[in-house]
Amino acid sequence: MSTYTAITLADRPSAEGIGPNLFNVEQRELPTPAAGEFLVKQTHMSLDPAMLGWMSPDTDSYIPRVELGEVMRSFGYGEVMESQHPDFKVGDRVTGMFGWTEYAISNGQGVSTVDASLPAEMVLSIFALPGLTATQGLYRIGKPKAGETLVVTGAAGSVGSMVGQLAKAEGLRVIGVAGGQEKCDWIVNELGFDGAIDYKADGMKEKLAELTPDGIDVYFENTGGPIQHLVFERMNAHGRVAVCGMIADYLAETPAPGPSWINLLVKRITIQGFTMPDHLHEAPQLLEILTPHVQAGKIKYRAHVLEGLESAMTGLNLFFTGENKGKLLVKL
Amino acid sequence: MSTYTAITLADRPSAEGIGPNLFNVEQRELPTPAAGEFLVKQTHMSLDPAMLGWMSPDTDSYIPRVELGEVMRSFGYGEVMESQHPDFKVGDRVTGMFGWTEYAISNGQGVSTVDASLPAEMVLSIFALPGLTATQGLYRIGKPKAGETLVVTGAAGSVGSMVGQLAKAEGLRVIGVAGGQEKCDWIVNELGFDGAIDYKADGMKEKLAELTPDGIDVYFENTGGPIQHLVFERMNAHGRVAVCGMIADYLAETPAPGPSWINLLVKRITIQGFTMPDHLHEAPQLLEILTPHVQAGKIKYRAHVLEGLESAMTGLNLFFTGENKGKLLVKL
Repeated sequence: MSTYTAITLADRPSAEGIGPNLFNVEQRELPTPAAGEFLVKQTHMSLDPAMLGWMSPDTDSYIPRVELGEVMRSFGYGEVMESQHPDFKVGDRVTGMFGWTEYAISNGQGVSTVDASLPAEMVLSIFALPGLTATQGLYRIGKPKAGETLVVTGAAGSVGSMVGQLAKAEGLRVIGVAGGQEKCDWIVNELGFDGAIDYKADGMKEKLAELTPDGIDVYFENTGGPIQHLVFERMNAHGRVAVCGMIADYLAETPAPGPSWINLLVKRITIQGFTMPDHLHEAPQLLEILTPHVQAGKIKYRAHVLEGLESAMTGLNLFFTGENKGKLLVKL
Repeated sequence: MSTYTAITLADRPSAEGIGPNLFNVEQRELPTPAAGEFLVKQTHMSLDPAMLGWMSPDTDSYIPRVELGEVMRSFGYGEVMESQHPDFKVGDRVTGMFGWTEYAISNGQGVSTVDASLPAEMVLSIFALPGLTATQGLYRIGKPKAGETLVVTGAAGSVGSMVGQLAKAEGLRVIGVAGGQEKCDWIVNELGFDGAIDYKADGMKEKLAELTPDGIDVYFENTGGPIQHLVFERMNAHGRVAVCGMIADYLAETPAPGPSWINLLVKRITIQGFTMPDHLHEAPQLLEILTPHVQAGKIKYRAHVLEGLESAMTGLNLFFTGENKGKLLVKL
């Protein structure tokens, strides 16, 4: 009898971070697909900051949280090994919410077949959640116009790096906020950002003023933290703010207050929070915006690849420490 | 030689409030209109919270502030006394930004002729800035849907009372926040709000929870202050917030912080600040929405009328103390 490994959620995270104590590693019997189903062998999983929200103890019903005992939820890439489904055949490369598991049975819902010639890392780094998220937030909320200035936090991350590159392609001045000199160098030298601010260094306020002489029109927020107030103070009239992530506050007992709404009024600013599950049905339209920029060579990516399913259990901590370099993936 | 009185701005307000020491009362020679001009005798002036922003020492160029030595800016109602202008004739009733003055010369720019059969108080209370502001914020930002819950602060004020009545007419559950029992009684008993919260009384948080059992979908913010955090905590997924005024913070040295953006993200909320000068060109479309509700008898108003031009100098303080009962007007 063949078995495979799956990891379930056993406890919810506290301020101490995330580790193996929150999970159960289970050996399960390899299932056979029934009629209308197929078996996927997952080869790559995506780790995303949103997963921290899914694990959160918050009982707020608006978060589709993972229940204790369930396989931890995640997006991944794999190959169809057996199929009783008319639309998926053996050998197809597919993406979907397979979870932290080596094998998954699927009925095809929410699963897409992808071009087998594209590397799995590229698929998960660009054409999956990060790319859709960057495109949704930048175009639908940020409404970028050539000549404007955009600031993006988490700028070396999977979403932030795409936001900045797309905005550059649209003719904006782009400033990225990232942690550490290496990331700052990467977004400026490799991705072509106009400037970078290291949130771990001193003098953020002065640096921001220097790099945004005409103020800020679009603010793409991936992190929260003290930079939020500094950026908000420099927003121009009719500025747009897309709130995509608040990693700095996910585990805080008391989240830091936001900026006063006075500026929001005086400058007629729009702020909009969004999460991709609301917009997955718009993926085809978003890909129509995104794909030409990728084809034109405007979008570079880098993947930070962890080895082995079990590495996911500590890998999520990299979002808190900011040590991940590029899109965080697990290779099974 | 005939003279008239005009009041100019002599100094900018500080935390001590607003009084005659900030203004100069001047006697001026009555002018004669040149070709293309007409002379208005102003009979009623509107006092609005936005005027506090116009007087502010803030040098932010996005505020169209009144310069020292200029006649204080205001919206008003009057009668054409002499005319060299083809579109305005003697006896016409007109509204426009005439300022704190008994007489004004105009070239017609920004001046509207109004139905002389409508009382001046009604024109300034409903069909002028308050009505346009309420309509813009409620419909364009709040996007009200029958069955939803709306909370409006400054609910007994000129804008807030109209927002609540329009939302009732659209089938929403409407809760108003106002200062003092008398105002709370008025919005519930006279205007038909579903509930009222006295921000000067204890137990706001419990009262709000009790009155909004299904959470809050639309938040129309006129005041700022501690209620802001309480309302924001109860916002539903996909909630909309229109920020129209922040009277509690206009003169604060350090404005109170806003709510954390965490909820904005988790609940995918949209917050938008707006001021009417950006939207005056849309007045015809806004009046198309507003007028049928007025004709259907859905919109009641009350005017709080001060007597004499010079009463304007202390009248603005009523916005800080919340003592004004309804739309604040000055009868000249």
